[in-house]
Amino acid sequence: MFSVTVRDHMMIAHSFRGEVFGPAQRLHGATYVVDATFRRPALDENDIVVDIGRAAEELHAVVGELTYRNLDDEAEFAGTNTSTEALAKVVADRLADRVHAGALGDDGRALVGLAVTLHESHVAWATYERAL
Amino acid sequence: MFSVTVRDHMMIAHSFRGEVFGPAQRLHGATYVVDATFRRPALDENDIVVDIGRAAEELHAVVGELTYRNLDDEAEFAGTNTSTEALAKVVADRLADRVHAGALGDDGRALVGLAVTLHESHVAWATYERAL
Amino acid sequence: MFSVTVRDHMMIAHSFRGEVFGPAQRLHGATYVVDATFRRPALDENDIVVDIGRAAEELHAVVGELTYRNLDDEAEFAGTNTSTEALAKVVADRLADRVHAGALGDDGRALVGLAVTLHESHVAWATYERAL
Amino acid sequence: MFSVTVRDHMMIAHSFRGEVFGPAQRLHGATYVVDATFRRPALDENDIVVDIGRAAEELHAVVGELTYRNLDDEAEFAGTNTSTEALAKVVADRLADRVHAGALGDDGRALVGLAVTLHESHVAWATYERAL
Amino acid sequence: MFSVTVRDHMMIAHSFRGEVFGPAQRLHGATYVVDATFRRPALDENDIVVDIGRAAEELHAVVGELTYRNLDDEAEFAGTNTSTEALAKVVADRLADRVHAGALGDDGRALVGLAVTLHESHVAWATYERAL
Amino acid sequence: MFSVTVRDHMMIAHSFRGEVFGPAQRLHGATYVVDATFRRPALDENDIVVDIGRAAEELHAVVGELTYRNLDDEAEFAGTNTSTEALAKVVADRLADRVHAGALGDDGRALVGLAVTLHESHVAWATYERAL
Repeated sequence: MFSVTVRDHMMIAHSFRGEVFGPAQRLHGATYVVDATFRRPALDENDIVVDIGRAAEELHAVVGELTYRNLDDEAEFAGTNTSTEALAKVVADRLADRVHAGALGDDGRALVGLAVTLHESHVAWATYERAL
Repeated sequence: MFSVTVRDHMMIAHSFRGEVFGPAQRLHGATYVVDATFRRPALDENDIVVDIGRAAEELHAVVGELTYRNLDDEAEFAGTNTSTEALAKVVADRLADRVHAGALGDDGRALVGLAVTLHESHVAWATYERAL
Repeated sequence: MFSVTVRDHMMIAHSFRGEVFGPAQRLHGATYVVDATFRRPALDENDIVVDIGRAAEELHAVVGELTYRNLDDEAEFAGTNTSTEALAKVVADRLADRVHAGALGDDGRALVGLAVTLHESHVAWATYERAL
Repeated sequence: MFSVTVRDHMMIAHSFRGEVFGPAQRLHGATYVVDATFRRPALDENDIVVDIGRAAEELHAVVGELTYRNLDDEAEFAGTNTSTEALAKVVADRLADRVHAGALGDDGRALVGLAVTLHESHVAWATYERAL
Repeated sequence: MFSVTVRDHMMIAHSFRGEVFGPAQRLHGATYVVDATFRRPALDENDIVVDIGRAAEELHAVVGELTYRNLDDEAEFAGTNTSTEALAKVVADRLADRVHAGALGDDGRALVGLAVTLHESHVAWATYERAL
Repeated sequence: MFSVTVRDHMMIAHSFRGEVFGPAQRLHGATYVVDATFRRPALDENDIVVDIGRAAEELHAVVGELTYRNLDDEAEFAGTNTSTEALAKVVADRLADRVHAGALGDDGRALVGLAVTLHESHVAWATYERAL
């Protein structure tokens, strides 16, 4: 199995609801360094998994929809906690939608899996993996 | 599949028995930067894999039992080499015991897997993965 | 010249005023990975620059006053932009106050300089250096 | 499952054929930081996955066959693009050949899998995983 | 003193002349992860050292003139070795020219120093520092 | 001013004397990732600061004298604490001796300064800087 990973980042504000979160129930923020990994079992006719430039552009577009925002104000996240792991799924699902819509061309259609890791600090990160 | 990882470290002395170890047969030491990854297929009602604060506390407790020690003097390691890979299993199994004892609450009981990576330097590391 | 550095982090929300900031004028957030460096020309009688445990505790106390907060709501930052470089100075000055108050003991009094670096992402960071 | 990873690097020149590569169709180059991961389900009688020193030597030998070269001039790569993902497979397959030839001794024969990651920059990397 | 650093990268081919370079006399290549640090003694009226977005754009423009090229073919480098340290000076001097030409606006004119670090691998890097 | 840095590592056991060290008074150990930085104001006739291969060899020789040892047993460290900062000076001074003895050739004689950083973990490191 082959995979290619590209890295970007986003800077957001949010708060959490639930006693488990302690001081993180207050409005605070995070830089998420975001790694998106695209998997496929064989290389294409150009000897690549995916056009890495386009993969980076798609990831940049997805993080661009989230960065420099207070996620508490975004209607799509109403009633949920935008934890690191939950946001990893948001980024992965949005990338998957783009892949399915053809954003990565034929290479994208041959992808079998996707993993997204969000690093919230030098000592904590979360990953969501899914099929494509 | 979701996962959350927390990082800590420990600083230990030890020696190895066996010609394969060369100069590492002498008493020496290591800083192990320790990453513990907790996996579960779905998020809980708080939209998380596990309470990251408690996960970090449990990892800190486990590395606290090992750090600042000469592992050659610890009875539990008598007759074994405390290689990086062997210690990854020690940390993982001790974390698993804590999870099974309820240290991470109900979230912990829903976990399906655990991986522990010990980085011994910038050019070598080892991982042990197990089910929960 | 000797120096010792310890690392911690904080997670804050804030917004910026001024057209130069573009989308960062919106409420957003950041994880700051914070490095504090303590300098002195000679080691003490214990062969150290400073008690690294106490240095880490002092840094943790300083970032603890800032983390999990919306800095726009903190009276002390009214009328200023809490840019990465401005916050590096805040952390450095607060550490300096603690050193001058004796938080690091006699070792602290022999320190001649302090530098604080805040990493806002994997591609941008800022430093403030000052005498002690 | 256990794994051990060792890191090395290589510095090569190459060019790519295919419009998808844009400016990378020109002769350029890359430093590849190379991570080789060796997997086996149980530790050997020395409590290790593999002799990490020999593993590092074998990886160094493999990258030594590629480093400080213009891959466009190497006959073995004629007609293919030496993309990061393609080179990850080259390194992995050459390591596998060495393992099968006994380079890692009996430990090597008990290995069940191998993964090679090539980091081409701080924001992009590729992995190839295979059985042994 | 304050400083702000931004990171980018470039991927080039080149060869070196001189026996000291050993196998690096052959045509090979490198990824240079490039850090540019801008220094000034006081913050501006926006509480920043420099507009970090513009600083990143200027660095991107400078590395864009070098990346995806065989430096042996660039007339400006004829008769010189494009070592990591020499290229650090090239990047720094070109950034300085842009600052002097007003690319960073009034903030740029208040800068007093510039440092550029090129990381050629995980185990080697070089820096050039200059006044502005 | 130019500088070139090379990285290596060493793995040692030791204990500390003095109440300030708390649990580190027990025999324990550390991996030190060691960065050695060589400074000179101008490049040589090969357009380099120093032969990076020889610099790496000299650093490797110096860490080779310390690695895989219990520093408590080394006569040269009797009566001193081998703290991270103290060991940074040991490495720097030994490198300086080698430079002065001609190990880096004429390039070495033109060097004006040397800095050595020892990273003891992902959250703590120490540096010693000196003239040459």
